[in-house]
Amino acid sequence: MTNTTTSHERPEGVGRRIVVVGGVAGGMSAAARLRRLCEHASITVIERSGHVSYANCGLPYYVGSVIEDREDLVLQTPERLQARFRLDVRVNAEVVSIDRERREVRVRSVETGEASVLPYDTLILSPGAVPIRPSIPGADRMRVLRTVEDAERLASEVTTRPRSAIVVGAGFVGLETAENLAHHGIPVTVVEARSQVLPVLDPELAIAIEETLERHGVRVITGAGVAEVHAWGVTLDDGQEVEGDLVVAAVGVRPDVRLARAAGLELGPHGGILVDETSRTSDPAIYAVGDAVEKVDAISGSLELVTLAHVANRQGRRVADHICGRAVEARPSIGTAIVRIFDTVAASTGLSEQRLRALGRAYQVVRAHPMSHASYYPGAQPMSLKVMFDPSDGRILGAQAVGGEGVDKRIDVLATAIAAGLPVDELANLELAYAPPFSSAKDPVNMVGYIAENIRSGTCDVVEPEEVESLVRDGWTLLDVRTAEEHRHGAIPGSVSVPVDELREHLESLGDGPFVVYCAVGLRGHVATTALLEHGFKARNLNGGHRSWAAWKAAERMALAG
Amino acid sequence: MTNTTTSHERPEGVGRRIVVVGGVAGGMSAAARLRRLCEHASITVIERSGHVSYANCGLPYYVGSVIEDREDLVLQTPERLQARFRLDVRVNAEVVSIDRERREVRVRSVETGEASVLPYDTLILSPGAVPIRPSIPGADRMRVLRTVEDAERLASEVTTRPRSAIVVGAGFVGLETAENLAHHGIPVTVVEARSQVLPVLDPELAIAIEETLERHGVRVITGAGVAEVHAWGVTLDDGQEVEGDLVVAAVGVRPDVRLARAAGLELGPHGGILVDETSRTSDPAIYAVGDAVEKVDAISGSLELVTLAHVANRQGRRVADHICGRAVEARPSIGTAIVRIFDTVAASTGLSEQRLRALGRAYQVVRAHPMSHASYYPGAQPMSLKVMFDPSDGRILGAQAVGGEGVDKRIDVLATAIAAGLPVDELANLELAYAPPFSSAKDPVNMVGYIAENIRSGTCDVVEPEEVESLVRDGWTLLDVRTAEEHRHGAIPGSVSVPVDELREHLESLGDGPFVVYCAVGLRGHVATTALLEHGFKARNLNGGHRSWAAWKAAERMALAG
Repeated sequence: MTNTTTSHERPEGVGRRIVVVGGVAGGMSAAARLRRLCEHASITVIERSGHVSYANCGLPYYVGSVIEDREDLVLQTPERLQARFRLDVRVNAEVVSIDRERREVRVRSVETGEASVLPYDTLILSPGAVPIRPSIPGADRMRVLRTVEDAERLASEVTTRPRSAIVVGAGFVGLETAENLAHHGIPVTVVEARSQVLPVLDPELAIAIEETLERHGVRVITGAGVAEVHAWGVTLDDGQEVEGDLVVAAVGVRPDVRLARAAGLELGPHGGILVDETSRTSDPAIYAVGDAVEKVDAISGSLELVTLAHVANRQGRRVADHICGRAVEARPSIGTAIVRIFDTVAASTGLSEQRLRALGRAYQVVRAHPMSHASYYPGAQPMSLKVMFDPSDGRILGAQAVGGEGVDKRIDVLATAIAAGLPVDELANLELAYAPPFSSAKDPVNMVGYIAENIRSGTCDVVEPEEVESLVRDGWTLLDVRTAEEHRHGAIPGSVSVPVDELREHLESLGDGPFVVYCAVGLRGHVATTALLEHGFKARNLNGGHRSWAAWKAAERMALAG
Repeated sequence: MTNTTTSHERPEGVGRRIVVVGGVAGGMSAAARLRRLCEHASITVIERSGHVSYANCGLPYYVGSVIEDREDLVLQTPERLQARFRLDVRVNAEVVSIDRERREVRVRSVETGEASVLPYDTLILSPGAVPIRPSIPGADRMRVLRTVEDAERLASEVTTRPRSAIVVGAGFVGLETAENLAHHGIPVTVVEARSQVLPVLDPELAIAIEETLERHGVRVITGAGVAEVHAWGVTLDDGQEVEGDLVVAAVGVRPDVRLARAAGLELGPHGGILVDETSRTSDPAIYAVGDAVEKVDAISGSLELVTLAHVANRQGRRVADHICGRAVEARPSIGTAIVRIFDTVAASTGLSEQRLRALGRAYQVVRAHPMSHASYYPGAQPMSLKVMFDPSDGRILGAQAVGGEGVDKRIDVLATAIAAGLPVDELANLELAYAPPFSSAKDPVNMVGYIAENIRSGTCDVVEPEEVESLVRDGWTLLDVRTAEEHRHGAIPGSVSVPVDELREHLESLGDGPFVVYCAVGLRGHVATTALLEHGFKARNLNGGHRSWAAWKAAERMALAG
């Protein structure tokens, strides 16, 4: 063939033989990108399970028959990857050891036990993470959900109709699994050792998911660990017995570092593989990506374990770029995540208030309860939004949302704002797409910006839900500025009802203050607080209003009960 | 009353008497914010129609009975605004003139004709825009849709069942009105003088909306203006006659500058009121906000007329901040807009390709046709995304999307990226919320980033749909790398079928090239193109694949037919 132009030069530094260990997410992204950038390398992918490139995040939905065809989970096959990318993909094959000196990996067939040796110039480890099984009696009775094989086994067991199921662990996978078991009409109990479900969220937002589960017939037990697994169910560490002949462990994963550790590669503080900003391990010929690797958190700057498919994919692509001689920059992670449980959506990006507090970081909170779209257009749904920012420079540190429609959109906008370094007040100025079915003229994210600007400019100081009691003890007057009827239907104990629209007529009889003002969500409270300030009183507005206070109170009760 | 602390100081420079002309969007946002910042000013709002703070954007849906209760459109009443904000709101009252020297406005009651004079220290004009009525015979037979009164009239006429309706103008309001008339079972024809519907979009994206309208029984005539309106319908300027006993004019609005012009205030190049970055007019005591005002376009830097509710609201708030002595910055507009027509959503932010071309700006395009969420999870819908960026620095200049679910989310993320100045390649690194019901591990916005990065780094040059024909004429070989079956079901004329998975086997027989490669959406084409480049051929990938080419072709046919 004649070469008319040589548009692609042979990348510098590409070893001829590249071996990738692990054919899902990060590993497969790396292999495919390597091929697109370099036709001439030999690329071999070794995968222990029977499938590569499978839809890990779809597994719970296969168990629940939401995804009906197993083939839909398997995005690629070794044959197709060979045809399209000339990748030598070997499934049911396990790398059992790395000889760093000779640059060889020893591979064993999972099916036949046959061993072989594969030399490499560059090795990419993408071994992923393994589900944690609690070290308790009967732990081997528990199912896990990590591979297509796990999902197939669970899906077939579900069709034999267990009488009831227990899911241990209330993180994303645990709750998705619980919902999908419930879809089969199986009574499900979720057991979580911590005092709340979805610990990535702050408790006063997570409570909405707990309520959703219970509304849909899923029993939730928090604050109790599993002590023993029996054929009939589990015994909890507080002595409680819970029935369930199917027990699923979803208590998290730990990085699979068996190979890396045995090869003497450096590990990080959380037991994951330590890599530099190019994903290179302590051995310059070995890279590592995905769930097995420690990643720099963009907000805290510290190393964390982040087990998210999209983060792994991106790392895989970046390591291919680097290996092919392209400049890559450090990419700290902000850890955006989302889950839908029945009709409720919960999402977060950046750090939670709990994490910020644990890190000793200064922060300020914005709380809002806007509608998903213009309330005059049918179908609008309420959501709760919480955004943390740095009081010194307004940098957004984290955001969480719980609701239905449009939660994903607002978290994505906030994740983009965090990535771009937009200060929180700038959210007020974002021009987001508005028509009645989609948003309001002031989008929920704009509202967060307005509230933040009012806080930062000193226009209106706020009070957090957990501060109310102590302020009242210190003599602050608690002013409910909702209507008298709203007040009658449930108010914060000790509050005085003075509807905002009558406030100015009662200025003489309010007393001297100072005042903690509240309404349903914070808007009328803001109007009343600014009016009081303008009349010379000392006043602060309850952040997120009665709704945030009630959620915080419910979470507190739950934690005490747990 | 005793003042414990004086947290709010009296803002500098707030005139005691503030008069606001126009009580919707910008005007009402200004008035409410002024009161929150300053309890002591006298604030009067004069509104010509019978309603303030009404939901302009909801009016078409009231006509369609999607919003059933008229009260839902009216977000505030003068009584409630008096109670909550001590605003003196006068509806059915018109400001007929401004005496700048004496700082007075002359007000006339619309109902009684009674006149009065109102002095001001600061005047805020928010007169909005008036619907354009074409100057053609019979124009007075046409209805418009701008006020609650217009909507009520149209809604009542619709119940008397016109035999058929004609909507003149295929912008946002025109198409929303057409859909809502169709909801009543009325046969509707849309007539648009330009060669496409929704001229804010580029034609190859707008075509999807045109197809949606026709799929739902709405007839669309483009490229023909209305010459005369009769009782039975309209005559078009090409002689065509269209039947319809209800004719609605939705050909756009023009800024209502009657008062401003009469008062000698400076106007801008498009006939709107000219203001500085603080919204001050050429008279330092007079401000103007909203649809009547010319705004700086963030991308082009030039003055434009932007008639969007959220932009008006924000201006209103900002002018209040400025009047109360707060520092405000210039806020150019990017003009984000969205519309849902039946089951199809179209949205845009920043500038279109057509506008960029008209401005003579250098730009490069990314085209993608991703699914709204993971394709293995039920309910995923295709969308078309188009993003324009500056080839020199990667700055995002505009974005458009058409599809169903998730179009609003992607445009909002892109609008945020534009506002934050994120270069287009950085879209690849955004960590957006991923779970199967919401997105893919590589979100559509990430895909745009990947494609842009491949273009900018020279990994893969692209060909635009409109370039294909001339390249083929210049001797380029057109290579269809989809499957043979896809090729049989419709291919670009003159293309040779070589499926990507068989490409490497056929390298010897392809000829010398150069090649224009295409697949369905651009992904397989990219794989094939990079492989050809690596084998020393000259090759470019068709941007957006066959789908973009077919849409461009359909739009071209439509424009020729129109």
